[in-house]
Amino acid sequence: MLTPIILSGGAGTRLWPVSREAHPKPFMRIGGGKCLLLQTFERAQAVAPQRSPLIVTNREYHLRSRDELPAKGTLPHYLLEPAGRNTAPAIALAALWAQQEDPDACLLVMPADHLITNVAAFRDAAVQAEALARDGFLVLFGIRPTAPETGYGYVEMGDPVRQQAQAHAVKAFHEKPDAATAAGYLAQGNFVWNSGIFCFRADVILQALETWQPPLMQAARSVWEAAGTSGDKTELPEAFEQLDNISIDYAVMEKAQNIAVVPGDFGWSDMGAWSAVADTVPADADGNNTNRPDAILIDTRHTYIDSKDRLVAAIGLDNILIVDTPDALLVADRAKSQEVKQVVSQLKARNHEAHKIHRTAVRPWGTYTVLGEGQGFKIKRVVVKPGHSLSLQMHHHRSEHWVVVFGTASITVGETTRLMTQNQSTYIAIGERHRLANPGITDLVLIEVQCGSYLGEDDIVRFSDVYGRA
Amino acid sequence: MLTPIILSGGAGTRLWPVSREAHPKPFMRIGGGKCLLLQTFERAQAVAPQRSPLIVTNREYHLRSRDELPAKGTLPHYLLEPAGRNTAPAIALAALWAQQEDPDACLLVMPADHLITNVAAFRDAAVQAEALARDGFLVLFGIRPTAPETGYGYVEMGDPVRQQAQAHAVKAFHEKPDAATAAGYLAQGNFVWNSGIFCFRADVILQALETWQPPLMQAARSVWEAAGTSGDKTELPEAFEQLDNISIDYAVMEKAQNIAVVPGDFGWSDMGAWSAVADTVPADADGNNTNRPDAILIDTRHTYIDSKDRLVAAIGLDNILIVDTPDALLVADRAKSQEVKQVVSQLKARNHEAHKIHRTAVRPWGTYTVLGEGQGFKIKRVVVKPGHSLSLQMHHHRSEHWVVVFGTASITVGETTRLMTQNQSTYIAIGERHRLANPGITDLVLIEVQCGSYLGEDDIVRFSDVYGRA
Repeated sequence: MLTPIILSGGAGTRLWPVSREAHPKPFMRIGGGKCLLLQTFERAQAVAPQRSPLIVTNREYHLRSRDELPAKGTLPHYLLEPAGRNTAPAIALAALWAQQEDPDACLLVMPADHLITNVAAFRDAAVQAEALARDGFLVLFGIRPTAPETGYGYVEMGDPVRQQAQAHAVKAFHEKPDAATAAGYLAQGNFVWNSGIFCFRADVILQALETWQPPLMQAARSVWEAAGTSGDKTELPEAFEQLDNISIDYAVMEKAQNIAVVPGDFGWSDMGAWSAVADTVPADADGNNTNRPDAILIDTRHTYIDSKDRLVAAIGLDNILIVDTPDALLVADRAKSQEVKQVVSQLKARNHEAHKIHRTAVRPWGTYTVLGEGQGFKIKRVVVKPGHSLSLQMHHHRSEHWVVVFGTASITVGETTRLMTQNQSTYIAIGERHRLANPGITDLVLIEVQCGSYLGEDDIVRFSDVYGRA
Repeated sequence: MLTPIILSGGAGTRLWPVSREAHPKPFMRIGGGKCLLLQTFERAQAVAPQRSPLIVTNREYHLRSRDELPAKGTLPHYLLEPAGRNTAPAIALAALWAQQEDPDACLLVMPADHLITNVAAFRDAAVQAEALARDGFLVLFGIRPTAPETGYGYVEMGDPVRQQAQAHAVKAFHEKPDAATAAGYLAQGNFVWNSGIFCFRADVILQALETWQPPLMQAARSVWEAAGTSGDKTELPEAFEQLDNISIDYAVMEKAQNIAVVPGDFGWSDMGAWSAVADTVPADADGNNTNRPDAILIDTRHTYIDSKDRLVAAIGLDNILIVDTPDALLVADRAKSQEVKQVVSQLKARNHEAHKIHRTAVRPWGTYTVLGEGQGFKIKRVVVKPGHSLSLQMHHHRSEHWVVVFGTASITVGETTRLMTQNQSTYIAIGERHRLANPGITDLVLIEVQCGSYLGEDDIVRFSDVYGRA
């Protein structure tokens, strides 16, 4: 049985404004309502039922990831990085973890932010890959190209590695090509896209890393010695940040000889930019695709419209992407969707918060949305999930007026706790200890009006917290 | 002295989503912060100081218009229509009103929704026009074309009507031309745009209407007999709606012989579409113009971005208009900005409220903005102007939680009135009589959380109202 390793690292800056630092690509709901991380988890279960996948992710995303995945059945284990260091260090640590669980572990490494529409075909490819991996190959999943894509790396396949398997040796790796080169690759027929999905035995990849990246592997082993496991998580120490920031492709795959490519055709997309996302949404006769049934399209073709809150009207557009969120709007030529990352760079350079956070923030207990603010006040809609509870807290600079508008709240102010329901309100003075909880079985929705001289999120003193944030 | 007649009727459907039925074009702030109605009022004062202009508008817009104009100095009089019937009926009634005030009245008729940047040049043209009008001419202001515009009607000028004046007889009126024809007009040199600005003696235009539109004029006289004046307004009876829906151009100007054209060059634009609005905003080196200093423009040219609340990023756009409002977004090819009216037609056909109202509604006492809503609740930010007061009212289906977040409120609940200031709150139960007023000298800002089974604006019983709405 394969051990699924899910690399949940991609920020997805090219999917701004929906992706943000606090809402990276694996949490985006693309292709049918489920987030990409959950889709990847379910794919892992389809390939290796009842096997607990390892999710390698930033420690900041641990609770959020747990939240997005099922709370019952096979639960994943988390390997938590203090910072992203690309795929080679992540895979090295994942292999050390897997080998400890099972000395014969064979890994199926999958990025958490890809879309695969034909899971049965993917499972078939994984079966082939495992057979090769068990025999000592480092297996790479190749995707048969359907268009002269310039956004992917290509693998040029050589001879079959076995008579019976649809697997090939690697002749060469090729960087992202220009359009003419990509057309040539497509025409030749023995080129596939490098999917970033791999299969290998833990001992084989560790040996390969030892051979080709000895300093990295040495550092990885000492990081692993210092890692601490409790419950569903293994936390990597700060020293992890000293590891080389290098991909497994550069570190091993482009150097080793025991490589096999399994070419596949399972409806794969890396969702690398809005143009790729748009291609996954069914289009009308004019090539337009939108999630808004009320969008008004006049004389418009090949245009993608993604908006949750706003009515959108388009006139005379051709090949345009419109992605609208509560605080930021992107309008781009479909052919230039790669350049969205430049927007994020500019926002970072300006220290504009629109690259980091959404107007709706996700917390372990639920969400809050800033509805409005002005001089000395801020209004939030707070949604608390059933059975969840905010920390017992206090603010130095603001008082809060709470009105319950849906569900039932358990509200602690000072030493008193009482239940409040729809159409009831209370007041939390500056300096008063308070806690908000939802003891019920429906969501609790509460409107909070803050008044004060300073209204930043960092004006919070936590006395106790069920999520370990106190 | 001329009598300014301001026709404040234009809905401006081609300026959706900023213009709406409840926020028509004369109230739009274009070209420097002041609304077009106020700019027109100030232009009237520049031409005819201390002369009280007549504003012809829908009765729905009376209080709102008064609100947009100065409260001191020369005040306008209002001629209130129950429904729009185009310019001929409006001018007929305006002339009857002016003649009653002054039998020798000479009218300067100006649409309220045009932009004129060179007011001194306009005043000079008006002086010429008045001299001709006093001599019995029906004077039309022509605009020397600066481009082969296809969005305007053209007037072909004939011989000068006087040796000394820059005024011409009319050779022909021409409908909006196609591009080739417009280029020909521009080359010939004796064609001007029909501005919709006119000057004539009240008795002369009434005589002309009598001659060319006898049934209309007869009906207009009987409507005038039934009109009632009180304070600053003359209200036209419902019978006004039976008048022919016809423009003064068709009704008189294209038929009469005593027409003179005064060609002018005073920075005129009819602001007829977003492309015209965009042309009034200074552009950067790439031809982009925006009201957002934080807009991110990558590889983008000749693009107009208008957004109040949202960060906007544009990539690879050329000649695109982006107009963003809290509930609706327009993205259009600049060359197709006339087609915005089709969007409004489609919204009307669907009965979508985005053609009628904005998320912020303007009331005589201030504004309210819907910040959010959900099952059984709605949140509003209410701003009350100093010295203003909402009606004494009651709701059958909702209770209200009020939190004052800025300024001071005088709040009446039942028989009790008390002052409340920032960080204080109160509760209005279903069925309780209440009134909100701002006795202070700064704005009052209040957050209202409504809870109830029905939250429509029509759940209101008004007991008394200082704006006559009870």
